[in-house]
Amino acid sequence: MITRMSELFLRTLRDDPADAEVPSHKLLIRAGYIRPIGPGLYSWLPLGLRVFRKIEQIIREEMNAIGGQEILLPALLPRAPYETTNRWTEYGAGLFRLKDRRGNDYLLGPTHEEIFALTVKGEYSSYKDFPLRLYQIQTKYRDEARPRAGILRGREFVMKDSYSFDVDDDGLKAAYDAHREAYQRIFARLGVKYVVVSAVSGAMGGSASEEFLAESEVGEDTYVRCLESGYAANVEAVITQRPESLPVEGLPEPVVHDTENTPTIATLVDWANGANLPQFAGRTVVAADTLKNVLLKVRQPGGEWELLAIGVPGDREVDDKRLGAALDPAEYVMLPAEDFPKYPFLVKGYIGPKALLANGVRFLVDPRVVDGTAWITGADEDGKHVVGLVAGRDFVPDGTIEAAEVRDGDPSPDGAGPLVSARGIEIGHIFQLGRKYADAFTVDVLGENGKPLRLTMGSYGIGVSRMVAVIAEQSHDDIGLRWPSSVSPFDVHVVIANKDDDARTGATELARQLDLLGVEPLLDDRKMSPGVKFKDAELLGVPWLVVVGRGWANGVVELRNRFSGEVEEIAVDGAAATIAGRLAG
Amino acid sequence: MITRMSELFLRTLRDDPADAEVPSHKLLIRAGYIRPIGPGLYSWLPLGLRVFRKIEQIIREEMNAIGGQEILLPALLPRAPYETTNRWTEYGAGLFRLKDRRGNDYLLGPTHEEIFALTVKGEYSSYKDFPLRLYQIQTKYRDEARPRAGILRGREFVMKDSYSFDVDDDGLKAAYDAHREAYQRIFARLGVKYVVVSAVSGAMGGSASEEFLAESEVGEDTYVRCLESGYAANVEAVITQRPESLPVEGLPEPVVHDTENTPTIATLVDWANGANLPQFAGRTVVAADTLKNVLLKVRQPGGEWELLAIGVPGDREVDDKRLGAALDPAEYVMLPAEDFPKYPFLVKGYIGPKALLANGVRFLVDPRVVDGTAWITGADEDGKHVVGLVAGRDFVPDGTIEAAEVRDGDPSPDGAGPLVSARGIEIGHIFQLGRKYADAFTVDVLGENGKPLRLTMGSYGIGVSRMVAVIAEQSHDDIGLRWPSSVSPFDVHVVIANKDDDARTGATELARQLDLLGVEPLLDDRKMSPGVKFKDAELLGVPWLVVVGRGWANGVVELRNRFSGEVEEIAVDGAAATIAGRLAG
Repeated sequence: MITRMSELFLRTLRDDPADAEVPSHKLLIRAGYIRPIGPGLYSWLPLGLRVFRKIEQIIREEMNAIGGQEILLPALLPRAPYETTNRWTEYGAGLFRLKDRRGNDYLLGPTHEEIFALTVKGEYSSYKDFPLRLYQIQTKYRDEARPRAGILRGREFVMKDSYSFDVDDDGLKAAYDAHREAYQRIFARLGVKYVVVSAVSGAMGGSASEEFLAESEVGEDTYVRCLESGYAANVEAVITQRPESLPVEGLPEPVVHDTENTPTIATLVDWANGANLPQFAGRTVVAADTLKNVLLKVRQPGGEWELLAIGVPGDREVDDKRLGAALDPAEYVMLPAEDFPKYPFLVKGYIGPKALLANGVRFLVDPRVVDGTAWITGADEDGKHVVGLVAGRDFVPDGTIEAAEVRDGDPSPDGAGPLVSARGIEIGHIFQLGRKYADAFTVDVLGENGKPLRLTMGSYGIGVSRMVAVIAEQSHDDIGLRWPSSVSPFDVHVVIANKDDDARTGATELARQLDLLGVEPLLDDRKMSPGVKFKDAELLGVPWLVVVGRGWANGVVELRNRFSGEVEEIAVDGAAATIAGRLAG
Repeated sequence: MITRMSELFLRTLRDDPADAEVPSHKLLIRAGYIRPIGPGLYSWLPLGLRVFRKIEQIIREEMNAIGGQEILLPALLPRAPYETTNRWTEYGAGLFRLKDRRGNDYLLGPTHEEIFALTVKGEYSSYKDFPLRLYQIQTKYRDEARPRAGILRGREFVMKDSYSFDVDDDGLKAAYDAHREAYQRIFARLGVKYVVVSAVSGAMGGSASEEFLAESEVGEDTYVRCLESGYAANVEAVITQRPESLPVEGLPEPVVHDTENTPTIATLVDWANGANLPQFAGRTVVAADTLKNVLLKVRQPGGEWELLAIGVPGDREVDDKRLGAALDPAEYVMLPAEDFPKYPFLVKGYIGPKALLANGVRFLVDPRVVDGTAWITGADEDGKHVVGLVAGRDFVPDGTIEAAEVRDGDPSPDGAGPLVSARGIEIGHIFQLGRKYADAFTVDVLGENGKPLRLTMGSYGIGVSRMVAVIAEQSHDDIGLRWPSSVSPFDVHVVIANKDDDARTGATELARQLDLLGVEPLLDDRKMSPGVKFKDAELLGVPWLVVVGRGWANGVVELRNRFSGEVEEIAVDGAAATIAGRLAG
């Protein structure tokens, strides 16, 4: 079928929409691919929907290729299963909740682990039924605090979510690997530049997990990688390289000093450098020589608030994302000022390990605080610090925690070189859930030995609607979009740039022939100036442009490549076949 | 691709589910096509989803063929546009409403007239842009009071809804006719038996409207038709054949009688037959000789409650659906008993036209109450009726209303013969909305003369998910489903009913060859008895069954037709091509 611009439901815009910040959002609106309906809610106009459907189909093919079976669950879901797993509560304000006419509670599904687990429980009862890989391509809902960047972070969006069910860990591993490879094929076919990063679990629960991040400056996710080894990880997942422990023998005893007016690490370091400390003879004291102790309140699910202290080298801040991931699933807050008086041993600004440990406060330290390291830290008295407090001798922490910020130049956990940070957009997430959901719903089947066997699950997601924006983000220039062939709304954009009836008829016939050859054409048959048409063609971003223009009289049309800008003259005689050949190859 | 039953996510059930009432519901559950998640909420398992997608694709093709352009709107919608058209309120408890984290009101779209109107307003500004036909295939939500019969009336369901936009009535008429014909092609391709009935508008507003009803005993919609002319209509839309008026000259004057103990029409008729009334000399008095006056309270949108009296022949009840349609968009209730004392002129059980008209109560009558007809009716005094009260002489009603029930044997409005009633399931609805929504949102474009022109709209819906159940309802037998080829989950069901490895390998190879020929096979390669496999095959309802059984050794397989039960032996040599030929026709 030939799509004619004269009939296509499309109005391109000359100006960027006022509220759009990122290039993909601006261009998808200007080129008439999507339209806003409300915060985080968008309509797909014909061009956008075509791209969307092509992405969907590629994902579907690759899921089928690894034995995925497509099903489709409702988006409107009863509360009970999400109550069982506590996600009804855990999701907080991010969950759209509603009541039906009888007053029963429902939610709009943000992800479907619960229902998939129950569905499999409902059908299968023997180990012989496994492995099983199910997926759906379905509309999901999350009430984002800040919907942004158009369809990059919407409140209604489409995901492919799949779930694997296995009777043992090897099965789960195989399903995980199959998905990992399928995702790599999908992103390759979509022409997306991405990295796979180690991830830690959020509200999903579980163990091994990786994210696929599209490389993008406008991404909300920060990750780090080692250019030498290719190691990449979410900052939450970076494991700090732990120095070797040092012998404590012969280290000087700690000395308490008056250090008035040193409320910050910087002022403390200044004091230390002026104090002529024997421990630092011959070198300058730096912030990394100090130990900063941060106080939190932490509460395990269903538990009571408890004090927690975290010791990090003074040159580093506590990274909220890393801290959250390390403490998950517990809640936490920095200890509020008004709580300090409840604990008289906490001397604000001068908190040290000794008072913490003496008073039974749980004390976790950065992995760099190994035995034998000596620190300048609080002496638990107003205006006093202690110098040369040695870990493993003067204090023994309760353990380590990955809470300190990761910085460019930090060593990669694999020892291959320094880490550098970059930004990305999450486009896929693969996850070994293990038995969390099977436990919640007692999803057991009969094993080979006749005894019940608990299933193990994986969950695997790709943002389908988001992908449209991600590709636009990675593939555009100043004048418009540039779609990879695999997802372009049309294969070729035929522009009539010649007013002669003859050229007009010829262009239409050329489009018809292209269509017969399986090359989907968009025909710009509008009665407008060639300039306007070219501008629109550049904005819409179909990778190949055929111009039926002045050359028509001489028996040639132009074939232009939207990426390279290359122009080739093609003889009108046999033009459709020639063009189809160029596109294929 | 070959789908193997040994891997297919499917578990058939031997017994009907406890809560299923209608055949399609029972069979779709038993055959593993769908599964319940909550009241009116269903999951599509692999087989169900395959049927669903085939239906969806047929609808899409026919919508594209009439110039429909596919777009996709959110299901989660802001309140404001539905407030503008008052549907936020009008939908009542049928609308799922929710709040986001900021407390703003949203709804789950039951239908999208508002957003389509706004979308077109946002893009187009000139008469040159029209006609325009847009559609979507999208998930909709209605909080049904009684979700029933599985996916026949769900609370989350998929519809194809299209909307036409034209600058004049002729354009709307053309769009309407195009949809009407497209719908006829769709239902023909789906193999659905249906009637097109005249309909009246519900909450949609507008004028010309027809419904497509699938013929089904389990349908919720009653319609009537004339077998002689083919006329068909919803009961709401039936227009009563109006008798000729009669001359009033020479008719006897009305006489008031004591009629104690005649609280019902039946007792009144008994009294009349015993009273030897001169008006009925020589014939028996029947209920149709009496006039029953029914009192209501009616309120126009935004208005006050007002009294309304309706006079119908005593042999007919007021039909609630017809009354509702006749009064739409007004609300109404039967006048509650406690309201009667407020109107002392209303003598319960003896209400007559005279007191109604004398006291300014609006009085509408059935179209059969034409001038010159004489009635036995209330005399507005306790225990008294009047005989021979003549319409047009003794009382002049304020108009007529189509509120009396329609009965089998009533004359067809086209005069061709009697009406007979039947039940159906609404599968499509086409609707000339006119300017209701364009008025609400001021959807104007510049006309040819440079002046603003208000658009006129049509809306056209088909239930996509419901159609799966409708086809199952029309196409099954006692042992299972029987899908028309166009929507069957597979083209052919190959059953291995022979334990020899040789037969097993041969069956698999046959399935592979069928697949290469474009015939989608389902291969039952399970290690189960042939009996179990045949039972499942009959339940699943693929129209053609290939049995690789005992005949294998003799070089033949069996081809069975699920509809006719016919069995043909097919030579193994060239079997795939032979079978493909039989299936093609």
